[in-house]
Amino acid sequence: MSLLEQLIDAFRILPGVGQKSAQRMAYHVLERERAGGRRLSEALASAVERIGNCERCRDFSETGVCATCASASRDVHQLCAVESPADRLAIEQATGYRGLYFVLQGRLSPLDGIGPRELGLDRLAERLAEGEVQELIIATNPTVEGEATAHYLAQLARKHGVRPSRPTHGVPLGGELEYVDRGTLSHAFGSRSEMPG
Amino acid sequence: MSLLEQLIDAFRILPGVGQKSAQRMAYHVLERERAGGRRLSEALASAVERIGNCERCRDFSETGVCATCASASRDVHQLCAVESPADRLAIEQATGYRGLYFVLQGRLSPLDGIGPRELGLDRLAERLAEGEVQELIIATNPTVEGEATAHYLAQLARKHGVRPSRPTHGVPLGGELEYVDRGTLSHAFGSRSEMPG
Ligand SMILES: [Zn+2]
Ligand SMILES: [Zn+2]
Repeated sequence: MSLLEQLIDAFRILPGVGQKSAQRMAYHVLERERAGGRRLSEALASAVERIGNCERCRDFSETGVCATCASASRDVHQLCAVESPADRLAIEQATGYRGLYFVLQGRLSPLDGIGPRELGLDRLAERLAEGEVQELIIATNPTVEGEATAHYLAQLARKHGVRPSRPTHGVPLGGELEYVDRGTLSHAFGSRSEMPG
Repeated sequence: MSLLEQLIDAFRILPGVGQKSAQRMAYHVLERERAGGRRLSEALASAVERIGNCERCRDFSETGVCATCASASRDVHQLCAVESPADRLAIEQATGYRGLYFVLQGRLSPLDGIGPRELGLDRLAERLAEGEVQELIIATNPTVEGEATAHYLAQLARKHGVRPSRPTHGVPLGGELEYVDRGTLSHAFGSRSEMPG
């Protein structure tokens, strides 16, 4: 493969980018954005190399503890569990939530070998046992696996005397948080209700 | 800016990528495509560094003369002038054209300081003077500047005893070749007519 073909092929790792878009991106960079292409190359290399996960919330972080967890201005009594960093970002951008997060980096999926350990739930349990958290907002996606995960988390919360709640309305069944529009997400988040036992 | 913010920002150099898509790309790479992200980083660096222009046709090439110009199976009697490498690729993929190309890397635009020299027309003139080319297919875009460029090229062709032709039908006025669907482009290319003097 020529370097141009390799570049077109490499662009196809990006979400929603097919052959035609990948070609357009490669030509655009070569024709008009060589400096930008060099910058993107360096940003990708640094990010992939140096962005790990926060020790406390498992969100992406280039430091041991992320900026949100380290912030003195967040409400430590509320903890919001989400499946992915993208979901965390969607909630952060769409709602006025000022509590903390816990990023599962997945959902329970026994057939794929993803159990409580893979989602860091031992660490979440320790966190709940510390006694600061009063409400666990369970914002997993409204899919079958997301719902199963939510029920597991609700039981875990109750076991530690923490009230579990779930944004109930507005997010379409089977939808993914990250693709829901801001207004809907903000409303769903605001209207969360306690999960039944 | 954090490394994550730098990555999101860098993705925005790509065509059609706004803040939301850039976020999605960055999270996708970090969550699921770290190896692919490394590969894209390397492909970008190599391409930007090592892809230059073919000495004969000015298309992108990582070697002095590109594969098309070096090929023994192309018809040396036909030369097709296009504005950009992307236009060349669109014609190559949509039509059965087997001649050679000349890539202007732009269009005449005196107000922007883009004249015959910037488009390599001295080299095109030498090429036409060599005597091999019998038809110059002028496939500049049907915009005001593209039409002006076409007329200039037609005069240049006639001066060297070469017949100028232009794909006339089907490409919408003001449209860009690279965005025209294959069928339309193929038809327009096949139905080209000699340019009036
Ligand atoms: Zn954190
Ligand atoms: Zn060439």
